[in-house]
Amino acid sequence: MVAEQSSRLKRGEVEALVREVLLQRLKGEPGLGRGEAGARGRGEKGGGPNPLVVNVSARHMHVTPADLEVLFGAGAKLTKLKDLYQEGEFASEQLVTLVGPRQRIIPSVRILGPVRNYTQVELSYTDGVYLGVDLPLRISGNHGGTPGITILGPQGAITINKGVIRAERHVHMSEADMAYYGVKDGDQMELKIEGPCGVTFEGVRVRYHPKVVLEVHIDTDEGNACDLESAVRMELVR
Amino acid sequence: MVAEQSSRLKRGEVEALVREVLLQRLKGEPGLGRGEAGARGRGEKGGGPNPLVVNVSARHMHVTPADLEVLFGAGAKLTKLKDLYQEGEFASEQLVTLVGPRQRIIPSVRILGPVRNYTQVELSYTDGVYLGVDLPLRISGNHGGTPGITILGPQGAITINKGVIRAERHVHMSEADMAYYGVKDGDQMELKIEGPCGVTFEGVRVRYHPKVVLEVHIDTDEGNACDLESAVRMELVR
Repeated sequence: MVAEQSSRLKRGEVEALVREVLLQRLKGEPGLGRGEAGARGRGEKGGGPNPLVVNVSARHMHVTPADLEVLFGAGAKLTKLKDLYQEGEFASEQLVTLVGPRQRIIPSVRILGPVRNYTQVELSYTDGVYLGVDLPLRISGNHGGTPGITILGPQGAITINKGVIRAERHVHMSEADMAYYGVKDGDQMELKIEGPCGVTFEGVRVRYHPKVVLEVHIDTDEGNACDLESAVRMELVR
Repeated sequence: MVAEQSSRLKRGEVEALVREVLLQRLKGEPGLGRGEAGARGRGEKGGGPNPLVVNVSARHMHVTPADLEVLFGAGAKLTKLKDLYQEGEFASEQLVTLVGPRQRIIPSVRILGPVRNYTQVELSYTDGVYLGVDLPLRISGNHGGTPGITILGPQGAITINKGVIRAERHVHMSEADMAYYGVKDGDQMELKIEGPCGVTFEGVRVRYHPKVVLEVHIDTDEGNACDLESAVRMELVR
C-alpha cells in the first residue's frame, strides 16, 4: 500500500540531478553542496603570506607500496585523479572498501597519493560509529595503540593491525606562515568559522613543513557541523 | 588473494563485542562510545535552577497520526521504547526507512513520540549528503520551502513534499532557566565544549516552553565534531 501524499521525484528530475552532479565532479568544482568524498573547502584572502584555505578531508587512506600491490595486484601504482592543494599530493583513482567489526562496510574510500611508508585510514567519528571502530584522535603517522581494519581491493585484501584514526584538526604552515601568525610547529590555534552554523574550533595543531602552504584540514563531521560552505568569514587565531 | 598482515578479529571477539553492545543497549546506558541512534549526552551541574544537559539528537522522525497509520497499518499507535529527557517525550519502537534521490536508503530511523500535527524528518548534513537531500537549517515545525522525502514503513510508504530539515542547534528552557541566563525565547547563545576536540557552538537558539527543563540539542555532526563524550567542561553563555 503506497499513499502518495505529494508527487515523487520524476525520473527526468533525477536524471537531470545526476547529470549535474557528474558534470560538476568531472570539472572538479567545489561549491556543489556538502560533499562526502574529496577535498572541498573555502579560501579567504588574509593579510598573511598565503590566503587562509580551509579544506574538509573526507574519509581516505594512505598506503605503502607493498599494501598497494596486495590490494591492486603486483606492480600496481597509484594513478592521479586530481591534484590536491599541497604540491605533489593527489587524489588517486584507486578506491577500496573498508570492513568493520559491526559487519558493515564503507565502499569507495579513496587512496590519497603519493604512496607512504605507512598504511593509514582516516575516518570521521560518524564513520567510526557506523563501522564499530573506536577511533583515536591522532596526527598522521602516530599509530601506537590505534586500531586496525580489514581493507578490500579489487585484487586482494589486507587486515592492518593499526593505523585507523580520526585525524586531529590541523593547519599546514610554512616558515613564513608560522612567522606571520607567531606560532611554531606543534602549537594549537583557534579557527573561527562565522555563518549560519558558526563554530570556533579549538586545538587546531600547527604542522610545519618547508614545502607546504597555509591550509587547515578538518574532517567531514567538523565541516558539516559548521557548514563550511555557507561560511561568511573565517579566521585563524593564536 | 588475501594477505593477513595481522590477525583478523576472531569470531569469539566479535561475538563478545556484539553481546556487550546489545547488553548496553538493552540497559539504555550512554557512554558506550559514540552512538548513532538515540539520544546520548552529557550533564553538568551548574549554578542554575537545572543542570546543563547537552544531548545529541540522532536522525529521527516525528509523525502525524494519519501518516503513522499509512506506514504501520490502520489503527497503529506509537509504542514506547524509552523515555527521553523532556517529560512526555519518548523514543518509540517504530522504525522507518528513508529513500533519497540518490537511490540510497537510510534504514532504522526511529520515530520520536508522541505523535505531532506534522510529519518531520531531522537529519545531519552527513545524512543529507549521503541521501542527496540539500537540508535547510530550521527550527522544528518551520517547513516552508523545505524538501520532502520518501518514507517506507512495514505496512506502507509515504512521500512527504516538505518537512526534511537539519534542526538548528537549540536549548530548551523554562522561565526559570531564561531568568538565570538572562535570555528570552528566540535569543541565540554560545555553547562551549572543552575537551580534546574542543568546540564553541555559536547561535544556539533559545526555545521556551513552560514544561521543559534545560537541555541543549545538537546533531550527530556537531556531537562528533566536539566529541561530546570526551568533554571535560561545558558552558552555556549569553
